[in-house]
Amino acid sequence: MPGPVYVAVVGGGRPEPADTEAAEEVGRLVAAAGAVVVCGGLGGVMEAACRGAKEAGGTTVGILPGHDRDEANPYVDVAITTGMGEARNTLVVRAADVLVAVGGEFGTLSEIAFALRTGTPVVGLGTWELAKGGRPVEAVVRADNPRHAVELALARV
Amino acid sequence: MPGPVYVAVVGGGRPEPADTEAAEEVGRLVAAAGAVVVCGGLGGVMEAACRGAKEAGGTTVGILPGHDRDEANPYVDVAITTGMGEARNTLVVRAADVLVAVGGEFGTLSEIAFALRTGTPVVGLGTWELAKGGRPVEAVVRADNPRHAVELALARV
Amino acid sequence: MPGPVYVAVVGGGRPEPADTEAAEEVGRLVAAAGAVVVCGGLGGVMEAACRGAKEAGGTTVGILPGHDRDEANPYVDVAITTGMGEARNTLVVRAADVLVAVGGEFGTLSEIAFALRTGTPVVGLGTWELAKGGRPVEAVVRADNPRHAVELALARV
Amino acid sequence: MPGPVYVAVVGGGRPEPADTEAAEEVGRLVAAAGAVVVCGGLGGVMEAACRGAKEAGGTTVGILPGHDRDEANPYVDVAITTGMGEARNTLVVRAADVLVAVGGEFGTLSEIAFALRTGTPVVGLGTWELAKGGRPVEAVVRADNPRHAVELALARV
Repeated sequence: MPGPVYVAVVGGGRPEPADTEAAEEVGRLVAAAGAVVVCGGLGGVMEAACRGAKEAGGTTVGILPGHDRDEANPYVDVAITTGMGEARNTLVVRAADVLVAVGGEFGTLSEIAFALRTGTPVVGLGTWELAKGGRPVEAVVRADNPRHAVELALARV
Repeated sequence: MPGPVYVAVVGGGRPEPADTEAAEEVGRLVAAAGAVVVCGGLGGVMEAACRGAKEAGGTTVGILPGHDRDEANPYVDVAITTGMGEARNTLVVRAADVLVAVGGEFGTLSEIAFALRTGTPVVGLGTWELAKGGRPVEAVVRADNPRHAVELALARV
Repeated sequence: MPGPVYVAVVGGGRPEPADTEAAEEVGRLVAAAGAVVVCGGLGGVMEAACRGAKEAGGTTVGILPGHDRDEANPYVDVAITTGMGEARNTLVVRAADVLVAVGGEFGTLSEIAFALRTGTPVVGLGTWELAKGGRPVEAVVRADNPRHAVELALARV
Repeated sequence: MPGPVYVAVVGGGRPEPADTEAAEEVGRLVAAAGAVVVCGGLGGVMEAACRGAKEAGGTTVGILPGHDRDEANPYVDVAITTGMGEARNTLVVRAADVLVAVGGEFGTLSEIAFALRTGTPVVGLGTWELAKGGRPVEAVVRADNPRHAVELALARV
């Protein structure tokens, strides 16, 4: 019996209200589908995704940059302290089957890039757009809304 | 409200039967005390500790060396793939408040040493003995049996 | 007496010929300025940058993903095997004072993003362009040519 | 043409004078044999080994726990900042073909254990002694003096 799918929900610590709402809905739908939410464990998008997942009775994992489990947001079920600082972003990606990026700053970009590099599919909701030489590079699968994002993500696992 | 204590239960992948039994009992008692079992996620002592914890209705976390969640033993609730190989031992230690070492080979020794280096208390049950210049270094707190080990561990958090 | 500046030169393993030439020139100019070239140690842009640096009598450091020092390109003076796979990209960034990105694929993007996240300046030469919501995010300092890139990089340390 | 051998010289940051002397002599002999000295980059045994290596015209690499290259001792040629804290010990081991442990505290023990776990030979000079169940485990090759230690180490590569 294969275990549940792990979906990393990544995004900024100080998101726009729309991103917070979207992340909460993503978390809810991921959990409703029986999948585990993995994230960086802190506030903002991470907290919203965990809150949504808990509303739907799901399981949440926070992979923290520091040494103090109390830094985890209150909706994290299992908090993994790493002491690796921002390099823990690679662990968030490695722990997941697929990434959903909601908005996000450079940390989120590093997770998107590391996922693309290592072959983990990435679904984006209002997140980074990539180009080279003026031409878009469509490596992130664009979603229109949280439901679409979760559908796209689960279809790619 | 502070969250639960995280106890790393570490030991070899191919333990003596007595160590397997001891690890299962350690896992059971850790879970009965409301603490989370953290381990390297594979077989042997890791599996026995997780099995014991699940018998007592506890939560188990496996921090895996590779990229494949299916390598986790069947009693792991949350499996974290790291792709770090044996260097993931440092993550097992960093995720925990206290270490209980049951028997064990060199990997276990590396976890004991990393814990001692970083100030995480270590309780030992038939595990490595350390000396320098012919004189014992009593840095690992010795336990007589699984119950004693878990009592000593929880008292040190 | 402060030591030399460390410049990470990052880019793809199978670059366009123009990127290879540019990377070699970047390596040469970095070394001519007395700075150390840090890179991922493999072929393509990494090898070209090291070759250029050695032509100018410089020092080169390759931080390798695997366990085998022989994977380093022949122009690496000091090869650091990490066994961390692509996660070694974070080490390339952390070892450097400034990043020069030449062309590049997703691995390079992960290095750019991690550098931006952790406050390491990034100079780009024909590399990734970033945008959000259709608006460019000009976080990478754009250079017109290798000389310009190295000037911009050294000015930002 | 194979490159030089990399020898990790590990030991405490506040060694006994005898260990400092021994480490300096180890560094000198490693360098005289054309091998590279790898270490944790800080003071004590690490500094002594680097000083010895530079006296013999060798090359020294320091893999630092923090983010500041200035923490390296003055005899480090190439300083790699990692931001990984004590977990950088695994990188010191992974970068080396063989380990020479001189005295040392728990950090050194973690390096010895990680080396033994991953199959890197370890030569010891007045360092940790290991036992299980009251019986010595002779996994560290014991050397009588620095010359002996370097001979044993180079013979094991």
